[in-house]
Amino acid sequence: QLPDGGLQLTLYQYKTCPFCSKVRAFLDYHGLPYEIVEVNPIMRKEIKFSAYRKVPILLANAGSPLQLNDSSVIISAIKTYLISKRKSLEEIVSFYPPMKSVSEKGKETLEYGNKYWLMLDEKETKRIYPVKEVRVEEMKWRKWADDWLVHLISPNVYRTPREALASFDYIVREGKFGTLEGFFAKYMGALAMFIISKRLKKRHNLQDNVRQDLYEAVNEWVKAVGKHRLFMGGSQPNLADL
Amino acid sequence: QLPDGGLQLTLYQYKTCPFCSKVRAFLDYHGLPYEIVEVNPIMRKEIKFSAYRKVPILLANAGSPLQLNDSSVIISAIKTYLISKRKSLEEIVSFYPPMKSVSEKGKETLEYGNKYWLMLDEKETKRIYPVKEVRVEEMKWRKWADDWLVHLISPNVYRTPREALASFDYIVREGKFGTLEGFFAKYMGALAMFIISKRLKKRHNLQDNVRQDLYEAVNEWVKAVGKHRLFMGGSQPNLADL
Repeated sequence: QLPDGGLQLTLYQYKTCPFCSKVRAFLDYHGLPYEIVEVNPIMRKEIKFSAYRKVPILLANAGSPLQLNDSSVIISAIKTYLISKRKSLEEIVSFYPPMKSVSEKGKETLEYGNKYWLMLDEKETKRIYPVKEVRVEEMKWRKWADDWLVHLISPNVYRTPREALASFDYIVREGKFGTLEGFFAKYMGALAMFIISKRLKKRHNLQDNVRQDLYEAVNEWVKAVGKHRLFMGGSQPNLADL
Repeated sequence: QLPDGGLQLTLYQYKTCPFCSKVRAFLDYHGLPYEIVEVNPIMRKEIKFSAYRKVPILLANAGSPLQLNDSSVIISAIKTYLISKRKSLEEIVSFYPPMKSVSEKGKETLEYGNKYWLMLDEKETKRIYPVKEVRVEEMKWRKWADDWLVHLISPNVYRTPREALASFDYIVREGKFGTLEGFFAKYMGALAMFIISKRLKKRHNLQDNVRQDLYEAVNEWVKAVGKHRLFMGGSQPNLADL
Protein backbone atom coordinates (compact mmCIF):
# COMPACT_ATOMS: atom_id res chain seq x y z
CA GLN A 1 0.00 0.00 0.00
CA LEU A 2 1.95 2.93 -1.33
CA PRO A 3 0.93 6.51 -2.15
CA ASP A 4 -0.50 7.15 -5.60
CA GLY A 5 -0.74 10.42 -7.50
CA GLY A 6 0.81 12.18 -4.55
CA LEU A 7 -2.15 11.29 -2.36
CA GLN A 8 -1.21 9.68 0.93
CA LEU A 9 -4.20 8.50 2.91
CA THR A 10 -4.77 7.25 6.44
CA LEU A 11 -8.22 6.15 7.54
CA TYR A 12 -9.17 6.17 11.21
CA GLN A 13 -12.08 3.80 11.61
CA TYR A 14 -14.02 1.16 13.42
CA LYS A 15 -14.06 -1.67 10.93
CA THR A 16 -17.73 -2.47 11.51
CA CYS A 17 -19.11 1.10 11.42
CA PRO A 18 -21.32 1.68 8.35
CA PHE A 19 -19.94 5.14 7.60
CA CYS A 20 -16.39 3.79 7.70
CA SER A 21 -17.39 0.91 5.42
CA LYS A 22 -18.80 3.40 2.95
CA VAL A 23 -15.51 5.30 2.81
CA ARG A 24 -13.59 2.03 2.30
CA ALA A 25 -15.95 1.01 -0.51
CA PHE A 26 -15.26 4.35 -2.17
CA LEU A 27 -11.47 4.19 -1.76
CA ASP A 28 -11.29 0.53 -2.82
CA TYR A 29 -13.46 1.10 -5.90
CA HIS A 30 -11.17 3.91 -7.01
CA GLY A 31 -8.10 1.81 -6.35
CA LEU A 32 -6.67 4.32 -3.91
CA PRO A 33 -4.19 2.86 -1.42
CA TYR A 34 -4.65 3.87 2.19
CA GLU A 35 -3.45 2.92 5.61
CA ILE A 36 -5.94 1.91 8.25
CA VAL A 37 -5.76 2.85 11.88
CA GLU A 38 -8.29 0.79 13.80
CA VAL A 39 -9.56 2.89 16.69
CA ASN A 40 -10.23 1.41 20.10
CA PRO A 41 -13.89 2.22 20.62
CA ILE A 42 -13.60 2.52 24.42
CA MET A 43 -10.53 4.72 24.90
CA ARG A 44 -10.28 6.14 21.39
CA LYS A 45 -6.72 7.22 22.09
CA GLU A 46 -5.83 6.85 18.39
CA ILE A 47 -7.94 9.93 17.56
CA LYS A 48 -7.01 11.96 20.63
CA PHE A 49 -5.09 14.29 18.28
CA SER A 50 -8.36 15.42 16.75
CA ALA A 51 -10.95 17.88 18.03
CA TYR A 52 -13.47 15.99 15.90
CA ARG A 53 -14.43 13.04 18.11
CA LYS A 54 -16.00 10.68 15.55
CA VAL A 55 -14.87 8.22 12.92
CA PRO A 56 -14.22 8.03 10.06
CA ILE A 57 -11.43 10.58 9.88
CA LEU A 58 -9.23 10.63 6.81
CA LEU A 59 -5.79 12.16 6.98
CA ALA A 60 -4.85 13.12 3.45
CA ASN A 61 -1.48 14.33 2.39
CA ALA A 62 -1.42 15.87 -1.06
CA GLY A 63 1.56 18.13 -0.55
CA SER A 64 0.38 19.40 2.81
CA PRO A 65 -1.39 17.31 5.47
CA LEU A 66 -5.12 17.75 5.86
CA GLN A 67 -7.75 16.23 8.12
CA LEU A 68 -11.09 15.33 6.53
CA ASN A 69 -14.09 14.61 8.74
CA ASP A 70 -17.50 13.11 7.92
CA SER A 71 -17.80 10.16 5.56
CA SER A 72 -19.73 12.05 2.88
CA VAL A 73 -17.42 15.04 2.95
CA ILE A 74 -14.44 12.70 2.63
CA ILE A 75 -16.00 11.06 -0.41
CA SER A 76 -17.11 14.32 -2.08
CA ALA A 77 -13.76 15.99 -1.50
CA ILE A 78 -11.56 13.12 -2.67
CA LYS A 79 -13.79 12.47 -5.70
CA THR A 80 -13.64 16.15 -6.68
CA TYR A 81 -9.88 16.00 -6.29
CA LEU A 82 -9.60 12.91 -8.50
CA ILE A 83 -11.64 14.58 -11.23
CA SER A 84 -9.92 17.93 -11.06
CA LYS A 85 -6.33 17.51 -9.99
CA ARG A 86 -5.41 21.12 -10.57
CA LYS A 87 -7.54 22.26 -7.63
CA SER A 88 -5.73 21.76 -4.36
CA LEU A 89 -7.37 19.42 -1.88
CA GLU A 90 -7.22 22.21 0.65
CA GLU A 91 -9.24 24.50 -1.58
CA ILE A 92 -11.76 21.76 -2.29
CA VAL A 93 -12.25 20.99 1.39
CA SER A 94 -12.91 24.66 2.13
CA PHE A 95 -16.12 24.32 0.07
CA TYR A 96 -17.49 21.88 2.64
CA PRO A 97 -17.35 24.07 5.74
CA PRO A 98 -18.61 22.78 9.09
CA MET A 99 -21.75 24.65 10.06
CA LYS A 100 -23.26 24.49 13.51
CA SER A 101 -26.97 24.45 13.86
CA VAL A 102 -29.34 23.97 16.74
CA SER A 103 -31.80 21.12 16.38
CA GLU A 104 -35.49 21.13 17.31
CA LYS A 105 -34.52 19.87 20.74
CA GLY A 106 -31.93 22.54 21.35
CA LYS A 107 -29.07 20.15 20.68
CA GLU A 108 -26.13 21.54 18.75
CA THR A 109 -25.35 19.57 15.63
CA LEU A 110 -22.56 19.92 13.14
CA GLU A 111 -23.40 19.77 9.47
CA TYR A 112 -21.18 20.27 6.45
CA GLY A 113 -22.27 22.59 3.65
CA ASN A 114 -22.73 21.09 0.16
CA LYS A 115 -21.64 17.69 1.42
CA TYR A 116 -23.27 15.64 -1.34
CA TRP A 117 -22.13 17.95 -4.12
CA LEU A 118 -18.96 17.62 -6.17
CA MET A 119 -17.21 20.93 -6.72
CA LEU A 120 -16.82 20.72 -10.49
CA ASP A 121 -16.61 23.30 -13.21
CA GLU A 122 -18.79 23.05 -16.30
CA LYS A 123 -16.41 21.00 -18.39
CA GLU A 124 -15.86 18.50 -15.61
CA THR A 125 -19.59 18.37 -14.94
CA LYS A 126 -20.33 17.49 -18.56
CA ARG A 127 -17.74 14.73 -18.47
CA ILE A 128 -18.90 13.17 -15.20
CA TYR A 129 -22.63 13.76 -15.58
CA PRO A 130 -23.55 13.64 -19.29
CA VAL A 131 -27.14 13.21 -18.13
CA LYS A 132 -27.77 16.16 -15.83
CA GLU A 133 -30.53 14.63 -13.76
CA VAL A 134 -28.21 11.89 -12.56
CA ARG A 135 -26.22 14.43 -10.57
CA VAL A 136 -29.21 15.52 -8.51
CA GLU A 137 -30.41 11.92 -8.22
CA GLU A 138 -27.03 10.84 -6.88
CA MET A 139 -27.15 13.59 -4.29
CA LYS A 140 -30.62 12.62 -3.10
CA TRP A 141 -29.79 8.95 -2.71
CA ARG A 142 -26.52 9.67 -0.95
CA LYS A 143 -28.49 11.66 1.57
CA TRP A 144 -31.09 8.91 1.77
CA ALA A 145 -28.38 6.39 2.65
CA ASP A 146 -26.94 8.65 5.38
CA ASP A 147 -30.27 9.71 6.85
CA TRP A 148 -32.52 6.70 6.40
CA LEU A 149 -30.73 3.50 5.39
CA VAL A 150 -28.23 3.65 8.26
CA HIS A 151 -30.97 4.08 10.82
CA LEU A 152 -32.31 0.68 9.81
CA ILE A 153 -29.05 -1.08 10.56
CA SER A 154 -28.89 -1.02 14.37
CA PRO A 155 -32.49 -2.08 14.99
CA ASN A 156 -32.06 -4.91 12.48
CA VAL A 157 -28.71 -6.05 13.76
CA TYR A 158 -29.78 -6.08 17.42
CA ARG A 159 -33.35 -7.18 16.78
CA THR A 160 -33.37 -10.15 19.13
CA PRO A 161 -31.05 -11.03 22.05
CA ARG A 162 -29.56 -13.81 19.99
CA GLU A 163 -28.90 -11.56 17.00
CA ALA A 164 -27.48 -8.87 19.30
CA LEU A 165 -25.02 -11.35 20.76
CA ALA A 166 -24.04 -12.65 17.32
CA SER A 167 -23.46 -9.07 16.12
CA PHE A 168 -21.28 -8.20 19.07
CA ASP A 169 -19.35 -11.39 18.72
CA TYR A 170 -18.49 -10.24 15.20
CA ILE A 171 -17.83 -6.64 16.23
CA VAL A 172 -15.47 -7.68 19.02
CA ARG A 173 -13.66 -10.11 16.75
CA GLU A 174 -13.16 -7.51 14.01
CA GLY A 175 -12.66 -4.45 16.22
CA LYS A 176 -9.72 -3.33 18.31
CA PHE A 177 -10.67 -4.39 21.81
CA GLY A 178 -8.47 -5.33 24.77
CA THR A 179 -8.95 -8.91 26.01
CA LEU A 180 -10.97 -8.05 29.09
CA GLU A 181 -12.60 -5.15 27.29
CA GLY A 182 -13.73 -7.48 24.53
CA PHE A 183 -15.27 -9.91 26.97
CA PHE A 184 -17.30 -7.19 28.66
CA ALA A 185 -18.10 -5.41 25.42
CA LYS A 186 -19.58 -8.56 23.97
CA TYR A 187 -22.10 -9.24 26.70
CA MET A 188 -22.75 -5.74 28.04
CA GLY A 189 -22.67 -4.21 24.58
CA ALA A 190 -25.11 -6.74 23.17
CA LEU A 191 -27.50 -6.14 26.07
CA ALA A 192 -27.19 -2.36 25.86
CA MET A 193 -27.67 -2.26 22.10
CA PHE A 194 -30.63 -4.61 22.28
CA ILE A 195 -32.31 -2.12 24.63
CA ILE A 196 -31.11 1.01 22.81
CA SER A 197 -32.38 -0.42 19.52
CA LYS A 198 -35.92 -0.36 20.85
CA ARG A 199 -35.52 3.33 21.54
CA LEU A 200 -34.01 3.97 18.11
CA LYS A 201 -36.93 2.11 16.56
CA LYS A 202 -39.32 4.49 18.23
CA ARG A 203 -37.28 7.59 17.49
CA HIS A 204 -37.09 6.86 13.79
CA ASN A 205 -40.70 5.70 13.58
CA LEU A 206 -39.85 2.22 12.43
CA GLN A 207 -42.36 -0.58 12.05
CA ASP A 208 -42.64 -3.14 14.78
CA ASN A 209 -40.98 -5.68 12.55
CA VAL A 210 -37.89 -3.74 11.52
CA ARG A 211 -37.00 -6.30 8.87
CA GLN A 212 -39.98 -4.95 6.98
CA ASP A 213 -38.51 -1.44 6.85
CA LEU A 214 -35.26 -2.84 5.58
CA TYR A 215 -36.99 -4.85 2.84
CA GLU A 216 -38.96 -1.80 1.83
CA ALA A 217 -35.86 0.38 1.73
CA VAL A 218 -34.07 -2.12 -0.48
CA ASN A 219 -37.09 -2.41 -2.76
CA GLU A 220 -37.30 1.36 -3.00
CA TRP A 221 -33.68 1.46 -4.07
CA VAL A 222 -34.07 -1.32 -6.63
CA LYS A 223 -37.13 0.38 -8.06
CA ALA A 224 -35.29 3.72 -8.31
CA VAL A 225 -32.46 2.11 -10.24
CA GLY A 226 -35.03 0.55 -12.54
CA LYS A 227 -34.67 -2.16 -15.15
CA HIS A 228 -32.64 -0.31 -17.71
CA ARG A 229 -29.42 0.30 -15.89
CA LEU A 230 -27.08 -1.82 -13.84
CA PHE A 231 -26.34 0.84 -11.22
CA MET A 232 -27.79 4.18 -10.17
CA GLY A 233 -24.82 5.58 -12.04
CA GLY A 234 -25.72 3.67 -15.23
CA SER A 235 -23.31 0.98 -16.37
CA GLN A 236 -20.79 2.05 -13.72
CA PRO A 237 -21.53 2.68 -10.04
CA ASN A 238 -21.72 6.32 -8.93
CA LEU A 239 -21.37 7.71 -5.40
CA ALA A 240 -24.94 6.74 -4.53
CA ASP A 241 -24.13 3.12 -5.37
CA LEU A 242 -20.91 3.16 -3.37
CA GLN B 1 -44.03 47.35 -11.36
CA LEU B 2 -43.22 45.79 -14.70
CA PRO B 3 -41.13 42.79 -15.73
CA ASP B 4 -37.42 43.37 -16.18
CA GLY B 5 -34.93 41.30 -18.11
CA GLY B 6 -37.69 38.84 -18.94
CA LEU B 7 -38.14 37.97 -15.27
CA GLN B 8 -41.72 38.22 -14.02
CA LEU B 9 -42.03 37.68 -10.30
CA THR B 10 -44.92 37.15 -7.91
CA LEU B 11 -44.25 36.80 -4.19
CA TYR B 12 -46.73 35.01 -1.95
CA GLN B 13 -46.12 36.18 1.56
CA TYR B 14 -47.19 37.24 4.99
CA LYS B 15 -45.83 40.74 5.21
CA THR B 16 -44.58 40.30 8.76
CA CYS B 17 -42.91 36.89 8.36
CA PRO B 18 -39.11 37.14 8.69
CA PHE B 19 -38.36 34.78 5.79
CA CYS B 20 -40.64 36.80 3.51
CA SER B 21 -38.97 40.00 4.62
CA LYS B 22 -35.61 38.53 3.74
CA VAL B 23 -36.77 37.77 0.20
CA ARG B 24 -38.17 41.29 -0.19
CA ALA B 25 -34.89 42.78 1.04
CA PHE B 26 -33.07 40.74 -1.60
CA LEU B 27 -35.44 41.64 -4.44
CA ASP B 28 -35.56 45.31 -3.47
CA TYR B 29 -31.80 45.59 -3.17
CA HIS B 30 -31.40 44.17 -6.67
CA GLY B 31 -34.06 46.48 -8.04
CA LEU B 32 -36.21 43.59 -9.27
CA PRO B 33 -39.88 44.44 -9.68
CA TYR B 34 -42.34 41.92 -8.26
CA GLU B 35 -45.99 41.60 -7.48
CA ILE B 36 -47.07 40.76 -3.99
CA VAL B 37 -49.90 38.44 -3.06
CA GLU B 38 -50.62 38.81 0.62
CA VAL B 39 -51.79 35.45 1.93
CA ASN B 40 -54.59 35.14 4.46
CA PRO B 41 -52.88 33.30 7.30
CA ILE B 42 -56.05 31.52 8.47
CA MET B 43 -57.53 30.15 5.23
CA ARG B 44 -54.44 30.45 3.03
CA LYS B 45 -56.61 30.10 -0.05
CA GLU B 46 -54.16 32.19 -2.09
CA ILE B 47 -51.63 29.33 -2.00
CA LYS B 48 -54.12 26.49 -2.40
CA PHE B 49 -52.66 25.93 -5.89
CA SER B 50 -49.41 24.77 -4.30
CA ALA B 51 -48.50 21.45 -2.72
CA TYR B 52 -45.90 23.39 -0.73
CA ARG B 53 -47.90 24.81 2.17
CA LYS B 54 -45.59 27.55 3.43
CA VAL B 55 -44.62 31.08 2.50
CA PRO B 56 -42.69 32.61 0.91
CA ILE B 57 -43.39 31.16 -2.52
CA LEU B 58 -42.03 32.95 -5.57
CA LEU B 59 -43.61 32.39 -8.94
CA ALA B 60 -41.00 33.26 -11.52
CA ASN B 61 -41.61 33.48 -15.20
CA ALA B 62 -38.46 33.60 -17.28
CA GLY B 63 -39.89 32.14 -20.44
CA SER B 64 -41.69 29.32 -18.67
CA PRO B 65 -43.43 29.59 -15.30
CA LEU B 66 -41.68 28.14 -12.30
CA GLN B 67 -42.49 27.87 -8.60
CA LEU B 68 -39.66 28.49 -6.14
CA ASN B 69 -40.05 27.46 -2.52
CA ASP B 70 -37.99 28.29 0.57
CA SER B 71 -36.61 31.77 1.10
CA SER B 72 -32.95 30.80 0.82
CA VAL B 73 -33.49 28.71 -2.30
CA ILE B 74 -35.38 31.64 -3.85
CA ILE B 75 -32.48 33.97 -3.12
CA SER B 76 -29.75 31.55 -4.26
CA ALA B 77 -31.56 30.66 -7.48
CA ILE B 78 -32.47 34.22 -8.50
CA LYS B 79 -29.00 35.50 -7.63
CA THR B 80 -27.38 32.74 -9.70
CA TYR B 81 -29.72 33.64 -12.54
CA LEU B 82 -28.81 37.33 -12.34
CA ILE B 83 -25.10 36.53 -12.47
CA SER B 84 -25.33 33.94 -15.24
CA LYS B 85 -28.20 34.74 -17.55
CA ARG B 86 -27.32 32.04 -20.04
CA LYS B 87 -28.31 29.29 -17.61
CA SER B 88 -32.06 28.80 -17.58
CA LEU B 89 -33.78 29.40 -14.27
CA GLU B 90 -35.24 25.92 -14.55
CA GLU B 91 -31.82 24.36 -14.76
CA ILE B 92 -30.57 26.44 -11.85
CA VAL B 93 -33.50 25.45 -9.66
CA SER B 94 -32.86 21.77 -10.37
CA PHE B 95 -29.58 22.16 -8.44
CA TYR B 96 -31.54 22.85 -5.25
CA PRO B 97 -33.61 19.67 -5.04
CA PRO B 98 -35.98 19.07 -2.14
CA MET B 99 -34.66 16.27 0.02
CA LYS B 100 -36.71 14.60 2.69
CA SER B 101 -35.04 13.56 5.86
CA VAL B 102 -36.26 12.18 9.15
CA SER B 103 -35.36 14.21 12.20
CA GLU B 104 -34.15 12.90 15.57
CA LYS B 105 -37.75 12.80 16.69
CA GLY B 106 -38.96 10.83 13.67
CA LYS B 107 -40.51 13.94 12.13
CA GLU B 108 -40.16 14.25 8.37
CA THR B 109 -38.51 17.46 7.32
CA LEU B 110 -37.87 18.89 3.90
CA GLU B 111 -34.49 20.39 3.18
CA TYR B 112 -33.08 21.76 -0.06
CA GLY B 113 -29.67 20.65 -1.27
CA ASN B 114 -26.95 23.31 -1.65
CA LYS B 115 -29.38 26.01 -0.60
CA TYR B 116 -26.77 28.56 0.49
CA TRP B 117 -24.55 28.01 -2.51
CA LEU B 118 -24.63 29.96 -5.78
CA MET B 119 -24.30 27.72 -8.83
CA LEU B 120 -21.49 29.60 -10.57
CA ASP B 121 -18.75 28.52 -12.91
CA GLU B 122 -15.15 29.49 -12.26
CA LYS B 123 -15.20 32.75 -14.18
CA GLU B 124 -18.37 33.90 -12.45
CA THR B 125 -16.98 32.81 -9.11
CA LYS B 126 -13.86 34.93 -9.58
CA ARG B 127 -15.97 37.95 -10.49
CA ILE B 128 -18.38 37.64 -7.57
CA TYR B 129 -15.97 36.37 -4.93
CA PRO B 130 -12.53 37.81 -5.64
CA VAL B 131 -11.66 36.82 -2.07
CA LYS B 132 -12.48 33.12 -1.87
CA GLU B 133 -13.06 32.91 1.85
CA VAL B 134 -15.94 35.34 1.58
CA ARG B 135 -18.00 32.77 -0.28
CA VAL B 136 -17.84 30.23 2.52
CA GLU B 137 -18.29 32.98 5.12
CA GLU B 138 -21.44 34.18 3.36
CA MET B 139 -22.82 30.64 3.34
CA LYS B 140 -22.20 30.14 7.04
CA TRP B 141 -23.84 33.39 8.06
CA ARG B 142 -26.84 32.82 5.81
CA LYS B 143 -27.34 29.53 7.60
CA TRP B 144 -26.82 31.20 10.95
CA ALA B 145 -29.57 33.71 10.14
CA ASP B 146 -32.00 30.94 9.12
CA ASP B 147 -31.21 28.58 11.97
CA TRP B 148 -30.39 30.81 14.89
CA LEU B 149 -31.26 34.48 14.37
CA VAL B 150 -34.90 33.77 13.42
CA HIS B 151 -35.44 31.64 16.50
CA LEU B 152 -34.72 34.69 18.61
CA ILE B 153 -37.49 36.71 17.01
CA SER B 154 -40.65 35.09 18.39
CA PRO B 155 -39.52 34.85 21.99
CA ASN B 156 -38.40 38.48 21.83
CA VAL B 157 -41.48 39.77 20.12
CA TYR B 158 -43.91 38.01 22.48
CA ARG B 159 -41.73 38.34 25.57
CA THR B 160 -44.38 39.93 27.80
CA PRO B 161 -48.19 40.01 27.45
CA ARG B 162 -47.99 43.69 26.58
CA GLU B 163 -45.35 43.15 23.89
CA ALA B 164 -47.32 40.18 22.52
CA LEU B 165 -50.42 42.33 22.15
CA ALA B 166 -48.47 45.15 20.52
CA SER B 167 -46.90 42.70 18.08
CA PHE B 168 -50.24 41.21 17.11
CA ASP B 169 -51.76 44.64 16.75
CA TYR B 170 -49.08 45.34 14.16
CA ILE B 171 -49.39 41.92 12.49
CA VAL B 172 -53.15 42.22 12.13
CA ARG B 173 -52.87 45.75 10.78
CA GLU B 174 -50.29 44.78 8.16
CA GLY B 175 -51.61 41.31 7.36
CA LYS B 176 -54.56 40.16 5.36
CA PHE B 177 -57.19 39.36 7.96
CA GLY B 178 -60.95 39.47 7.75
CA THR B 179 -62.58 41.96 10.17
CA LEU B 180 -63.80 39.40 12.67
CA GLU B 181 -60.78 37.21 12.05
CA GLY B 182 -58.51 40.13 12.84
CA PHE B 183 -60.25 40.84 16.10
CA PHE B 184 -59.91 37.27 17.28
CA ALA B 185 -56.43 36.88 15.88
CA LYS B 186 -55.24 39.89 17.83
CA TYR B 187 -56.29 38.70 21.26
CA MET B 188 -56.18 34.94 20.85
CA GLY B 189 -53.03 35.08 18.75
CA ALA B 190 -51.22 37.27 21.23
CA LEU B 191 -52.17 34.96 24.10
CA ALA B 192 -51.24 31.81 22.16
CA MET B 193 -47.91 33.19 20.99
CA PHE B 194 -47.06 34.45 24.49
CA ILE B 195 -47.47 30.87 25.71
CA ILE B 196 -45.84 29.20 22.71
CA SER B 197 -42.86 31.52 23.01
CA LYS B 198 -42.03 30.07 26.40
CA ARG B 199 -41.91 26.65 24.80
CA LEU B 200 -39.76 27.91 21.94
CA LYS B 201 -37.43 29.47 24.47
CA LYS B 202 -36.93 26.12 26.09
CA ARG B 203 -36.65 24.21 22.83
CA HIS B 204 -33.91 26.45 21.51
CA ASN B 205 -32.12 26.65 24.83
CA LEU B 206 -32.50 30.40 25.15
CA GLN B 207 -31.55 32.40 28.22
CA ASP B 208 -34.25 33.40 30.62
CA ASN B 209 -33.94 36.95 29.44
CA VAL B 210 -34.25 36.45 25.68
CA ARG B 211 -33.18 40.02 25.01
CA GLN B 212 -29.74 38.95 26.10
CA ASP B 213 -29.55 36.27 23.38
CA LEU B 214 -30.59 38.83 20.81
CA TYR B 215 -27.95 41.32 21.96
CA GLU B 216 -25.32 38.60 21.89
CA ALA B 217 -26.33 37.50 18.40
CA VAL B 218 -26.11 41.06 17.12
CA ASN B 219 -22.73 41.53 18.78
CA GLU B 220 -21.49 38.30 17.28
CA TRP B 221 -22.49 39.54 13.85
CA VAL B 222 -20.91 42.98 14.32
CA LYS B 223 -17.70 41.35 15.52
CA ALA B 224 -17.66 38.97 12.52
CA VAL B 225 -17.99 41.89 10.11
CA GLY B 226 -15.14 43.60 11.94
CA LYS B 227 -13.85 47.14 11.73
CA HIS B 228 -12.39 47.11 8.28
CA ARG B 229 -15.42 46.59 6.12
CA LEU B 230 -18.85 48.14 5.95
CA PHE B 231 -20.72 44.90 5.28
CA MET B 232 -20.00 41.18 5.48
CA GLY B 233 -19.73 41.49 1.70
CA GLY B 234 -17.12 44.28 1.94
CA SER B 235 -18.11 47.70 0.66
CA GLN B 236 -21.33 46.26 -0.77
CA PRO B 237 -23.78 43.96 1.04
CA ASN B 238 -23.70 40.28 0.11
CA LEU B 239 -26.40 37.66 0.67
CA ALA B 240 -25.47 37.25 4.32
CA ASP B 241 -26.10 40.98 4.85
CA LEU B 242 -29.39 40.88 3.00
